[in-house]
Amino acid sequence: MYHKRSPQLSTDYYQLSMSNVYINDDKKDDIAVFDLFIRKNPFKGGYTVCAGLEQVINYLTNVHFSQDDVNMLRENHPELSEKFLNYLSTFKFTGELYAIPEGTLIFPQEPILRIKAPLIQAQIVETALLTIVNHQTLIATKASRIVKAAGGDPVLECGLRRAHGAEAGLYGSRAAIIGGCVGTSNVESEQLVNIPSKGTMSHSYVLSYDNENEAFEKFSQYNPDNLTLLVDTYNTLESGIPNAISIFLKLKEQNKLPKIHGIRLDSGDLAYLSKECRKQLDAAGFTDAVISASSDLDEHLISDLKIQGAKITTWGVGTKLITAYDQPALGAVYKLSQIEHKGQVMDKLKVSNDPGKITNPGYKKVVRIYNKLTKKAIADIIMLSNETLDESEPLTIFHPIYTWKKRVLTNYTVKDLLIPIIIDGKLVYESPSIQEIQKHLKEEFKSMWPAVSRFINPHEYSVDLSMELWSLKNDILSW
Amino acid sequence: MYHKRSPQLSTDYYQLSMSNVYINDDKKDDIAVFDLFIRKNPFKGGYTVCAGLEQVINYLTNVHFSQDDVNMLRENHPELSEKFLNYLSTFKFTGELYAIPEGTLIFPQEPILRIKAPLIQAQIVETALLTIVNHQTLIATKASRIVKAAGGDPVLECGLRRAHGAEAGLYGSRAAIIGGCVGTSNVESEQLVNIPSKGTMSHSYVLSYDNENEAFEKFSQYNPDNLTLLVDTYNTLESGIPNAISIFLKLKEQNKLPKIHGIRLDSGDLAYLSKECRKQLDAAGFTDAVISASSDLDEHLISDLKIQGAKITTWGVGTKLITAYDQPALGAVYKLSQIEHKGQVMDKLKVSNDPGKITNPGYKKVVRIYNKLTKKAIADIIMLSNETLDESEPLTIFHPIYTWKKRVLTNYTVKDLLIPIIIDGKLVYESPSIQEIQKHLKEEFKSMWPAVSRFINPHEYSVDLSMELWSLKNDILSW
Repeated sequence: MYHKRSPQLSTDYYQLSMSNVYINDDKKDDIAVFDLFIRKNPFKGGYTVCAGLEQVINYLTNVHFSQDDVNMLRENHPELSEKFLNYLSTFKFTGELYAIPEGTLIFPQEPILRIKAPLIQAQIVETALLTIVNHQTLIATKASRIVKAAGGDPVLECGLRRAHGAEAGLYGSRAAIIGGCVGTSNVESEQLVNIPSKGTMSHSYVLSYDNENEAFEKFSQYNPDNLTLLVDTYNTLESGIPNAISIFLKLKEQNKLPKIHGIRLDSGDLAYLSKECRKQLDAAGFTDAVISASSDLDEHLISDLKIQGAKITTWGVGTKLITAYDQPALGAVYKLSQIEHKGQVMDKLKVSNDPGKITNPGYKKVVRIYNKLTKKAIADIIMLSNETLDESEPLTIFHPIYTWKKRVLTNYTVKDLLIPIIIDGKLVYESPSIQEIQKHLKEEFKSMWPAVSRFINPHEYSVDLSMELWSLKNDILSW
Repeated sequence: MYHKRSPQLSTDYYQLSMSNVYINDDKKDDIAVFDLFIRKNPFKGGYTVCAGLEQVINYLTNVHFSQDDVNMLRENHPELSEKFLNYLSTFKFTGELYAIPEGTLIFPQEPILRIKAPLIQAQIVETALLTIVNHQTLIATKASRIVKAAGGDPVLECGLRRAHGAEAGLYGSRAAIIGGCVGTSNVESEQLVNIPSKGTMSHSYVLSYDNENEAFEKFSQYNPDNLTLLVDTYNTLESGIPNAISIFLKLKEQNKLPKIHGIRLDSGDLAYLSKECRKQLDAAGFTDAVISASSDLDEHLISDLKIQGAKITTWGVGTKLITAYDQPALGAVYKLSQIEHKGQVMDKLKVSNDPGKITNPGYKKVVRIYNKLTKKAIADIIMLSNETLDESEPLTIFHPIYTWKKRVLTNYTVKDLLIPIIIDGKLVYESPSIQEIQKHLKEEFKSMWPAVSRFINPHEYSVDLSMELWSLKNDILSW
């Protein structure tokens, strides 16, 4: 916990060994363009929620290396030249960053971040950008799926103890709020997400008293505004619920029942128990009592509980959300697409036997095409940065691999997805609040046909290449 | 990245809401015993490698709350009393910690950490302890499996970009070294693991040059001691390997070929390519050339590549290790087992419909029984702390649920697994170096029958209860 972190050194060593060559080989002033993008939507889903830009900005505008860092590298890596170590000691990111704002729905192949910077800088920052974006984008996407399954019921993030360390819990909770969670149990993230953390009691609290009734009684005494009682420590239906009701009745008599009151279930058959609890609570007149539940929940279990008519009003989601349990890594990559060496600009791509893994060359942008009438998104197009689209002209789009799959679009509008964030090392963007990002994601879902976000066999949203980019790519491949 | 962390606040809010009740309800001086343990070995395996104790120690011996922390809590949580907030502002862990040393093989149900402390303290530290131990134990166990599959070949951890943030990458690399990895690509962890980080070049490096040959040539110029060339940027067999060989030949002629030289494969059919590369390298006289490979490797893929006769000598393992991809959460829990209220000691357990989930009461220890002749471990026994075993007497052990499963042991030795770490808030233990921990794990594996660590249908190692503990548990359950 209290180990001194050196986040500027949180990188793969090869970034330094390559940079050491660049600086000695007169490639220091080469200008490179890198795209950061995903290759597949996670969770067998049809979309991805991008997140992490605020931390990317903090990193790029602050990253520098101390003399201690340089000394450690000198000692451990005799192959690193003094020229390079000197360079590192004055390192500063002076390049350009364009990015898709957080909370936007994104799709495979399209650049989420586009870096244009001296090659050596672009290389040194690679790992940090990937680490940040891979993590938060993964968790935000998972959270959005769980929130969707809950169908409007509040979802609380409470996975810290199962997160991959405290920092993963912190930024995971941030991503969860972006994805639509209403709150988190994580106290450290209060300032980051601007919401007080939430929670009530654990089994050990109830066990620490001689009996459940006393534990509930004492808790109610010190929680006058929000009283959620954990009812499954001994026996939910025979002890927990009767004890909770007796406390509620007593408080009601004294006119002290908090507006927010209810119970929490943390084990057992949640479908059956929640229905029985609802019956007993309703019969006692507590029809407003919240029934919150937690117990290894994810979007599939929540959907299934909904189908079974479970009477759960608030969902606490831990392990499966904070670790993105069914797919705990996103796999975004950072690929060179252009390099300028001594004034000569060369577009670059990485070949592969798998056509879907061949990268897109050039200095590019991403646009989203909307139907003017429905306001729904139709397709995204990756194109060269200097290309323009005339909304008054019909637009032919085509699949980048199965090119005979064509559509002609009319009556559409065009939106640029990549926006300027850092220019010449200077921040030109104001990060929105987490609440604004969460709201932006809600708007994003409204602009997509539901088929894109359904869990089973989602519609594959079109991400096409402009004719010009497609031709450039094929020219390079044919060389 | 540069967001100010407050790791002392990295906890679930309910720890604070419960503590607020404890302090107001005169339970501040109750003394509680909590056990931290796992319920199942991860990865369908037969064992678990415990890790994270050093960070647990750092946390417990340093945790405190600043005035800013207290002010934030006061503002966001009107239900927290001034009495509690004052208590927090002088908080210090004054209790006791016993723990099983890092790198020890552990099994379900047995306490890995045992805390005895004022109830309120034991509660406030819960989440941090779980977060640290769950994460590092998970990754160390995964790493040990991958290292085992590699059968003595060096394994390198290189998953930072897919870790759940920079800190998960840092402590994940620490756990990977404990598990037996020889190194990591993560520069930040150099000081933590006391090994220089490793790495060579990426595809973007090769692409940044006009051709592969030039890229290799330049790299060799600035890496005189260790030259690993990435050969799959264009075409491994037709371009990468011939270019690598031509560089090696040239260097050999000039008497400049580094002792450590070789190639890296990062895509394609690793079985086929590694064999072809080996042939070409051998034919050119480079029989010592290293063939390292990476590409979504885990223990199963490595085992399979070995079966296919792949000629890989060094394994780079990323995503699957650093995220524990096939089971990204461990699920250790922290359960109250005893409480002393106003001088009266009560043993506690948590009931459950699932017999395997009923916790073990009391202030306990864990002993490991070894066969005196084979030196192999036979079983672990969880027993009350004040119980002793006489090695000269036959010992009857029995399964805690299927009690008719009995064995009588003779000619055995007994080892206490839980050792004192913190007493009265004072550290009484010196943390071993990471290399010592790694070595300890190797010894641990030697003391276990191989059946325990095999991947498919591992032998279930016995973790039994002493008769006295078993009786106590059944007495409480029968009340």
